[in-house]
Amino acid sequence: MITPPAYTDSSGTDNTGTSPLVLPGKRMVLGADRPMPLDGGGQLGPFTVAYQTYGTLNADKSNAILVCHALTGDQYVADRHPITGKPGWWEMLVGPGKPVDTDRFFVICSNVIGGCMGSTGPHDVNPATGQPYAIDFPVITIGDMVRAQTLLIDALGIDQLFCVIGGSMGGMQVLQWAVAHPERVFAAVPIATAARHSAQNIAFHEVGRQAIMADPDWRDGAYQRADTNPARGLAVARMAAHITYLSEAALHRKFGRNLQSRQAITFGFDADFQVESYLRYQGASFVDRFDANSYLYITRAMDYFDLAAEHGGQLAQAFRVNGRGTPVRFCLASFSSDWLFPTSESRAVVHALNAVAANVSFVEIETDKGHDAFLLDEPEFHQVMRGFINGCADHRGLKRRV
Amino acid sequence: MITPPAYTDSSGTDNTGTSPLVLPGKRMVLGADRPMPLDGGGQLGPFTVAYQTYGTLNADKSNAILVCHALTGDQYVADRHPITGKPGWWEMLVGPGKPVDTDRFFVICSNVIGGCMGSTGPHDVNPATGQPYAIDFPVITIGDMVRAQTLLIDALGIDQLFCVIGGSMGGMQVLQWAVAHPERVFAAVPIATAARHSAQNIAFHEVGRQAIMADPDWRDGAYQRADTNPARGLAVARMAAHITYLSEAALHRKFGRNLQSRQAITFGFDADFQVESYLRYQGASFVDRFDANSYLYITRAMDYFDLAAEHGGQLAQAFRVNGRGTPVRFCLASFSSDWLFPTSESRAVVHALNAVAANVSFVEIETDKGHDAFLLDEPEFHQVMRGFINGCADHRGLKRRV
Repeated sequence: MITPPAYTDSSGTDNTGTSPLVLPGKRMVLGADRPMPLDGGGQLGPFTVAYQTYGTLNADKSNAILVCHALTGDQYVADRHPITGKPGWWEMLVGPGKPVDTDRFFVICSNVIGGCMGSTGPHDVNPATGQPYAIDFPVITIGDMVRAQTLLIDALGIDQLFCVIGGSMGGMQVLQWAVAHPERVFAAVPIATAARHSAQNIAFHEVGRQAIMADPDWRDGAYQRADTNPARGLAVARMAAHITYLSEAALHRKFGRNLQSRQAITFGFDADFQVESYLRYQGASFVDRFDANSYLYITRAMDYFDLAAEHGGQLAQAFRVNGRGTPVRFCLASFSSDWLFPTSESRAVVHALNAVAANVSFVEIETDKGHDAFLLDEPEFHQVMRGFINGCADHRGLKRRV
Repeated sequence: MITPPAYTDSSGTDNTGTSPLVLPGKRMVLGADRPMPLDGGGQLGPFTVAYQTYGTLNADKSNAILVCHALTGDQYVADRHPITGKPGWWEMLVGPGKPVDTDRFFVICSNVIGGCMGSTGPHDVNPATGQPYAIDFPVITIGDMVRAQTLLIDALGIDQLFCVIGGSMGGMQVLQWAVAHPERVFAAVPIATAARHSAQNIAFHEVGRQAIMADPDWRDGAYQRADTNPARGLAVARMAAHITYLSEAALHRKFGRNLQSRQAITFGFDADFQVESYLRYQGASFVDRFDANSYLYITRAMDYFDLAAEHGGQLAQAFRVNGRGTPVRFCLASFSSDWLFPTSESRAVVHALNAVAANVSFVEIETDKGHDAFLLDEPEFHQVMRGFINGCADHRGLKRRV
């Protein structure tokens, strides 16, 4: 584990001067000396970033892998989630001897800003008012999330990340890292993602937001003050989103038209079909661990993501560094049955990287598991990850074990 | 136009004896003498079926085409909708000189039972209580919808329909007609439909129902008595469903990431993107013309639809009549970009029909318009419809004009 930098203070009370502050439970206060500028024009600071680490940072701090989490993910990549008690969301990929081998690499994952697992978000107190931000929290972007991560990496004393890896919204952050900070990223692994959010994906997000905002308990966002919780709206949002994470084939394989009981249909509105019961469970359990306003903010950040737009509409331009192709080594992966971030979106990134003669490999994994495949047991995918990461690490001269 | 049968009474007040009663505005009271049995075990009667007709019924009543409407459709196939003021929903296909030519055919379309455009549904008064049925209305099936249609056709004195045609849930009714009443259907045209509702489609319907039931104004279904309306929940349900009616390509072509204003994104939760504004409009306008409980009942009827289940799990068995293949002539159409009722679902029906050596033709129309293509300007589709219907009509010996 890393030693906290000398300038930090674990008491969590004395946030003086120009230095970040390490709070108990791996939370870092950043932007205290100089607020962090936001893409929307405002600024944020001081703010907290909550993070987890796995493995050991080597002496020259060259073996760090930043894992970026997806929309409803968090920093608990490879250890038990403090609310749900479930294993980390990427334990199949990250751990000792795993494709992202914590015997070799120092893995960091931080909760995105706007989130609700310890990093500053709309549920936190706005120092200007003494009340929760709610929807006075500034609308943030993928760029802002990455900006906050750069401050964390700075505070950890890491100049260059060996690798940035993530799926879905995590993949957007990977792309943003590579484009905004090519000198700080040795290798980038964007998985099941896109360089911009599609109209269909914006549409699904808008349905989720409208479901939350339609819940009278949302109270124009100020539900904490009203001591209410738009849990019904958030559950509906989650149910709609969850369908998009699976493929039609996976739903058919897992549930088909199977009934909850072995008896016949009940001619009513209870959950006759297993797929209904499953969805209801997904909605009900989600509200225990997620904040409705965070859902609004993070979906909005994804909707706004459009790498090419910031580069004259030419995605390839995003990957040009000083007139040449980016030095970052890329490995992209998509899943054949993913209709939320279909392979064509990954191909568009690959084509742009090819156009600047960047170092890129790409694999489409054959699976019926849909978008969620990146979180599931997909041996071919894990093998590709292991091969690419270890190959890059050898090239970078990293030891097999720290 | 047909002459009302001698035994009907247009006053709408004298519902005596064993005969149906024609109400003004093309509403027929049915099941007064003998309630109609329902698949769920209960019965319904007397009940009203509201319908529209176009063209003229010929002397031997052999030129009738029954159009079956989809989930949120109604009987206003080819004339102005009384609430929205918009043209009929299938005017491209039905009218004088159109593929379903009202100069040659007598076209009937009735609002499904459970609906909210004049046929008896959950918003109507339960004679047993004097209060709106709300969720005391019996849960109905596609079979029940068709059973009500057979009573209407009986009342109109029609022994055999020349053709039954419909898309989506309308196509389910077409299949049900052909299977349950093969002797009363000369030709059947199921469009963009399936012999059973898939797990993914059940899942999307369940999201819609949960959105409605999550709205506190739903009041456990008794919103009419409470003088409330779960409009927010119903709008969210419609928004989610509407995405499934379009293809990703169509959403990209129509909206892409275009902004509402020509200016930049607003960093807020207003509808920045055109696709958001479009969806919000779809939700808001839908609630003006549709009843939330009807939405629950009709989606449930679709979920329950499974033709094979009633025939030992063998779809082909559904198309066997007296040990031989059904005499009904079929023409199926699907649309290449329809992911709600994909071509594979139509193919499954075609394979079952082939297995009993039935008379079937099938076409997949290449289009990027998704499921809604059956309602839109698709010249190849319309040409196929015209060819099949006129060919069958010639074979049936129907005159070119009544």
